[in-house]
Amino acid sequence: MENDFLIDRLSIEKMDKRVRTNLINCISGFKSLNLCGTFDRQGITNLAPISSVVHIGADPPLQGMIIRPVSVPRHTYLNIIETGYFTLNHVTENIYRSAHQSAARYQKEESEFDKTGLTAEFLNGFKAPFVKESVIKIGLKLIEEINIATNGTKMLIGEIIDIHLPEGVLASDGFLDLNKAGTITVAGLDAYHKTEKLERLSYAKPDQDLKSIDF
Amino acid sequence: MENDFLIDRLSIEKMDKRVRTNLINCISGFKSLNLCGTFDRQGITNLAPISSVVHIGADPPLQGMIIRPVSVPRHTYLNIIETGYFTLNHVTENIYRSAHQSAARYQKEESEFDKTGLTAEFLNGFKAPFVKESVIKIGLKLIEEINIATNGTKMLIGEIIDIHLPEGVLASDGFLDLNKAGTITVAGLDAYHKTEKLERLSYAKPDQDLKSIDF
Repeated sequence: MENDFLIDRLSIEKMDKRVRTNLINCISGFKSLNLCGTFDRQGITNLAPISSVVHIGADPPLQGMIIRPVSVPRHTYLNIIETGYFTLNHVTENIYRSAHQSAARYQKEESEFDKTGLTAEFLNGFKAPFVKESVIKIGLKLIEEINIATNGTKMLIGEIIDIHLPEGVLASDGFLDLNKAGTITVAGLDAYHKTEKLERLSYAKPDQDLKSIDF
Repeated sequence: MENDFLIDRLSIEKMDKRVRTNLINCISGFKSLNLCGTFDRQGITNLAPISSVVHIGADPPLQGMIIRPVSVPRHTYLNIIETGYFTLNHVTENIYRSAHQSAARYQKEESEFDKTGLTAEFLNGFKAPFVKESVIKIGLKLIEEINIATNGTKMLIGEIIDIHLPEGVLASDGFLDLNKAGTITVAGLDAYHKTEKLERLSYAKPDQDLKSIDF
């Protein structure tokens, strides 16, 4: 565009801390938004919003999650290390305010479920709580913990054990209609957006036209 | 929901490979969508769509990117290792079909820029090509390479050097209005969605009501 402007490395360094935090959290684009459910050995449940889940592989089915052990989700991190299990629950328009509130720094003995009006749900004997009000829910087992040397952040790799889905969102080819399920997306730390479908496209091959896939 | 159904670990294992790939790629929720621009030592440019960028930290400003060295984006991976630099360029409604096509398995001597009608742009002396048609563009320097033992995938950590933005999308508090910029989001491997804003919320504190932030 004609009116682009540049923010270079030095300008980023000189920024006020909160300004930089907002900018850098926005800069990757829209993010997935999940509520991560855990409990500790005493059974005290914990819930935290997570926008750093990333696909690692389909076979075995793996998801990664970036977590800063010293910041807000430290109870989440400690619980996962302690029990080896966690859940990821999609956030919808109905529950994004509760999801946002669950990021507040509650005491360890307080459950974010109680504080935000969400309901802990125990399904299929899984060793971590799901969010009853969520639509798409995944149960994961911790399989690898990775230290990111540059800034002391961790990536936890979870293997998907159970998936809970509503009817009518799973296509025969495995595609999940997240828009129909009501899953929303977040920009930065605090800006919630719903989605509108544009198009699903066929597998790309050199010198072959793309086709629309109905969904 | 009443009509939830369960897909357990064994059902996932037994799935047809392509069905499982679609399902597991969708299951984390909506993803960011960037075009990753690189070149090799001979200056041959490369472009690949990446939906696995994840926020690592704001100070220093770091983004992570999951990449499978043996699959389609192998030229991207090799170029980044060779030159130490890459760009991430947000995808909009105008260019998502070109972005999708850039995933096709072109030969190393063919540039995805030429094949998809996108324009390589060289800005501020940065050592990798940006996408002229994109709106929000980031130049990154490779700073850490992490091996994910479980499945042989890599995570590349890049430090943000330059950010190029259009006018009118950056708020005084550092928030970027991605919806206004026209940045889109992807579900799974192939389903493109635009967004509609719901609400931006104030920082969450225990026992304090959330407020809307205008944007």
